[in-house]
Amino acid sequence: MALVVQKYGGTSVGDAERIRAVADHVARTRAGGDDVVVVVSAMGKFTDDLIRLADDVSPTRPPRELDMLLTAGERISMALVSMALAARDVESASFTGSQAGIITDTDHTRAKILEMRPDRIREALDDGLVPVVAGFQGVSTDRDITTLGRGGSDVTAVALAAALGADVCEIYTDVTGVFSADPRVVPKARRLAKVSFDEMLEIAATGGRVLMLRSVEFARRHHVPLHVRSSFTWEPGTWIVEEDATMEDAVVSAVTDDTSEAKVTVGGVPDRPGIAAHLFRALADRSINVDMIVQNTGANGLTDISFTVAKTDLDAARDACTTVKDEIGAAEVSTDDDIGRVTIVGAGMKSSPGVTALMFETLSTNGINIEMISTSSIRISCVVRADRVADAVRHLHTAFGLDAA
Amino acid sequence: MALVVQKYGGTSVGDAERIRAVADHVARTRAGGDDVVVVVSAMGKFTDDLIRLADDVSPTRPPRELDMLLTAGERISMALVSMALAARDVESASFTGSQAGIITDTDHTRAKILEMRPDRIREALDDGLVPVVAGFQGVSTDRDITTLGRGGSDVTAVALAAALGADVCEIYTDVTGVFSADPRVVPKARRLAKVSFDEMLEIAATGGRVLMLRSVEFARRHHVPLHVRSSFTWEPGTWIVEEDATMEDAVVSAVTDDTSEAKVTVGGVPDRPGIAAHLFRALADRSINVDMIVQNTGANGLTDISFTVAKTDLDAARDACTTVKDEIGAAEVSTDDDIGRVTIVGAGMKSSPGVTALMFETLSTNGINIEMISTSSIRISCVVRADRVADAVRHLHTAFGLDAA
Repeated sequence: MALVVQKYGGTSVGDAERIRAVADHVARTRAGGDDVVVVVSAMGKFTDDLIRLADDVSPTRPPRELDMLLTAGERISMALVSMALAARDVESASFTGSQAGIITDTDHTRAKILEMRPDRIREALDDGLVPVVAGFQGVSTDRDITTLGRGGSDVTAVALAAALGADVCEIYTDVTGVFSADPRVVPKARRLAKVSFDEMLEIAATGGRVLMLRSVEFARRHHVPLHVRSSFTWEPGTWIVEEDATMEDAVVSAVTDDTSEAKVTVGGVPDRPGIAAHLFRALADRSINVDMIVQNTGANGLTDISFTVAKTDLDAARDACTTVKDEIGAAEVSTDDDIGRVTIVGAGMKSSPGVTALMFETLSTNGINIEMISTSSIRISCVVRADRVADAVRHLHTAFGLDAA
Repeated sequence: MALVVQKYGGTSVGDAERIRAVADHVARTRAGGDDVVVVVSAMGKFTDDLIRLADDVSPTRPPRELDMLLTAGERISMALVSMALAARDVESASFTGSQAGIITDTDHTRAKILEMRPDRIREALDDGLVPVVAGFQGVSTDRDITTLGRGGSDVTAVALAAALGADVCEIYTDVTGVFSADPRVVPKARRLAKVSFDEMLEIAATGGRVLMLRSVEFARRHHVPLHVRSSFTWEPGTWIVEEDATMEDAVVSAVTDDTSEAKVTVGGVPDRPGIAAHLFRALADRSINVDMIVQNTGANGLTDISFTVAKTDLDAARDACTTVKDEIGAAEVSTDDDIGRVTIVGAGMKSSPGVTALMFETLSTNGINIEMISTSSIRISCVVRADRVADAVRHLHTAFGLDAA
């Protein structure tokens, strides 16, 4: 008998029919002899509806009140799931984040979990109930309701799985797992049966949309095996587990793409110590997250520094650079929001020479120019023109032998 | 500087525009120098929407989960009201029933308040904030979320006003106060500037729709002056206060009507001790509330017992009577759901002889037959044919001098 945490996202509880399907699956899991803890998100677009309503009511939205508003969504879905379980003779009880003992800091709208005290969840399990827990929410050390920010329901599920010592945390969503590439870009993309935490982190960081970086990091740190699967087909999906000796490392597991970033270049900078520090401090002070950074010094002693930021941060980044331009003696600041990034990820890359060469050759053969390069031990990312990203992904997917038969 | 509890019902926070109007009024009240605690209901028909959703999801609705579901409604409105206050530079913070220290028993969907511990509300007031509290909800001694049943938001407001020693509890609604009769029935009905708790209790019990009996009783017991008024016109409404020497008692303050009940007659019962006890025990065992009771013994030593119940309880009442019919030796059980009740209420009635006679004469003159009579020291109710109720109300309103000029 195992203990399974099952997390259902917004589309999985999107309407009455989906909620009944979820209850059927929980009942099946229970009938199979396993103990289940359910974690739910708000129904489908309910959160968006609430935000629209708030926009109508007030231009001002204090974070504490925004959290109070948004946490209504999970209350509704958890109560409905619990009712549907009752109709299937599965005894259950729903719990808010606060009742489930999810203690956070006071950073409203993006709180971090400080401590898990799931005493009531343990009691419910001991009493033979299926606890149904509100995802995304907690209670702060100031006794206020908080939310965990984007991907927060996954974090709730992983944190509960860790605290309860669950055997697996199942993340139910509207796709059947993690794929070797975005199937909308690469029709021949394959579902991966198993990936390591390290690979999943790189996939999530470079454009994989299934899991947020944060919940994968949390799961890795707490050794919680994840199983990403579909609440529409219920077929087995992708396991995300610790790398072990028995795992045969694929040289390349996945090719990801991301066109959400833009490039900023600060050109003609004197090559003096402290210049980069000055520039990136100015960006950090504006809370701008910088992703890739490339610096090249030419023969004339002048340096070009390029970096990428989220397109939504581009204006702020340009302002920051323009402000410090004279202080650092730069010649010019230019921006480019017509770029994209293509990335290959694979734990086997570490021990396989020639991967980098094959990637560059594949892009070159297909006339795709590489504008920036960034690497980790299990990842290589290249910035290319935005309109060549899909081509690049397809060619790399084929070149690294990932195409489905 | 006074402390005012302002309770806004479902229509008062029915949409974004109404919520902004509420925030304007709270800001005005604060600007006038008073401290304000706001209590809100769920927005308009939101609760009905949730119940419809629950019906779609599951035929089974455990009361604990139903309470969890329904309390989402007040969370939404309180957060929105608090945001709208922020936009008006009024500092506020919203609190759930649990955070406001409303401790109830464990009787889900109709919990009773056991204790008020509004420490956080007091702190918020001390900090100069406007606390915005969820009506209708509390937390049980088992740490579960409960709801207070029909009219629960009014109860929340009155209980908070009592616990905080507020100067007045203002109940905002979609009518401008308590009227001398239902204005839809009597176009010449007048708004009452002031009524006593006792009168209001009788009005609420006999068909006045503005306030629930329960919150009036609570206010009377805790000496909380109520002020019922409109959140659409914001004009002064009706004060409900303790009777005092300076209050000039109207002989009759209001005429109410009610067609929600039906009559059951158990006929031809031997006039023996214990018969009525046996009959009404059978009704009580089925949780049927009996309102008026009339018993008449004829010359033949046989008794007819008639009583009224809510129409929704009629089938259950008929069953109960039929079941005990033989045991009590009754000849027959008949029912009549075509009745209505007309009532006159007035604290001055106690010291004014002739009120009863004038009521009966007025009905008689207009050809309205009286089928049952029930009285208290400040009320007389008559059961008449349902289709004569409106007529009866209008004639009595005129006869007792209540018509607006």
